[in-house]
Amino acid sequence: MIREITRDDFEAFWPTFSAVIKAQETYAIDPELTLEQGFQLWCKSPMKTFVFEEDGQVIGTYYLKPNSQGPSQHICNCGYMVSDQARGRGVARKMCEHSQVLATELGFKAMQFNSVVATNEVAVRLWKRLGFEIIGTLPNAYQHGKLGFVDCYVMYKWLVPWTRHD
Amino acid sequence: MIREITRDDFEAFWPTFSAVIKAQETYAIDPELTLEQGFQLWCKSPMKTFVFEEDGQVIGTYYLKPNSQGPSQHICNCGYMVSDQARGRGVARKMCEHSQVLATELGFKAMQFNSVVATNEVAVRLWKRLGFEIIGTLPNAYQHGKLGFVDCYVMYKWLVPWTRHD
Repeated sequence: MIREITRDDFEAFWPTFSAVIKAQETYAIDPELTLEQGFQLWCKSPMKTFVFEEDGQVIGTYYLKPNSQGPSQHICNCGYMVSDQARGRGVARKMCEHSQVLATELGFKAMQFNSVVATNEVAVRLWKRLGFEIIGTLPNAYQHGKLGFVDCYVMYKWLVPWTRHD
Repeated sequence: MIREITRDDFEAFWPTFSAVIKAQETYAIDPELTLEQGFQLWCKSPMKTFVFEEDGQVIGTYYLKPNSQGPSQHICNCGYMVSDQARGRGVARKMCEHSQVLATELGFKAMQFNSVVATNEVAVRLWKRLGFEIIGTLPNAYQHGKLGFVDCYVMYKWLVPWTRHD
């Protein structure tokens, strides 16, 4: 079940969140973030944040927010995180599909991922399968915990039918 | 002369700033921003903001800020604005050169422009001449005040000599 996040949910998910940012392999988030700062970043500053709950366990979470303002306010941005024990079961895919529906309901026309770490092949493959295109490569844009500087991709998907009158 | 901005400087520059965002041709900034919100966005949330002053007049301004956090904290972002009457005199070029020196002094290794409106040919040409590369095109990422949806470029420049030990 995908539903909006609560403070308790975030605290329950914090061990995963903290491990993910400390690993420095996927997210451009300060690895030393406190739970409070993490809650602010992931749950308060975005427009919406959800959890993926299964058997009473929070096994994933995602946020949705505008990627920009004014003349580019039709583009949103999302971030997704899945707990280790839930990998390979389609949780990220289901959250991304949910977020695309939500995005169009909220009036967004496109979704942009600003920084997909190129070595995160599972994510890159999934986003491609879900219709996102690599629009460019940022050389050495991410200092990977194990590999040193690696590239990042900017990925983008237009979500709605195109009309001349938009 | 390029020096750090004051509140008075921003107020003096506001007619230009306001006209630029209202035109919706170059910046992904809400065109209805108030002076107070503009001051917050341009002068308070960035790390540093400067003016280009000539004969006691503020004819340009730029900000510098981190583009991201943690593993991508080595990338900065800048925005530049020049008053109408000062165009074509190298003000943007001088500010961009100043910002690149400042960026490396502050420890940044790369500079990224997230959204250069593709129809803003003067800017695109200048950034290319100053060593920035178009790393990708975001289709229909900007709703132009006159032209409707137009593309944006992501532009990027590595600022420092590359070493294996970074």
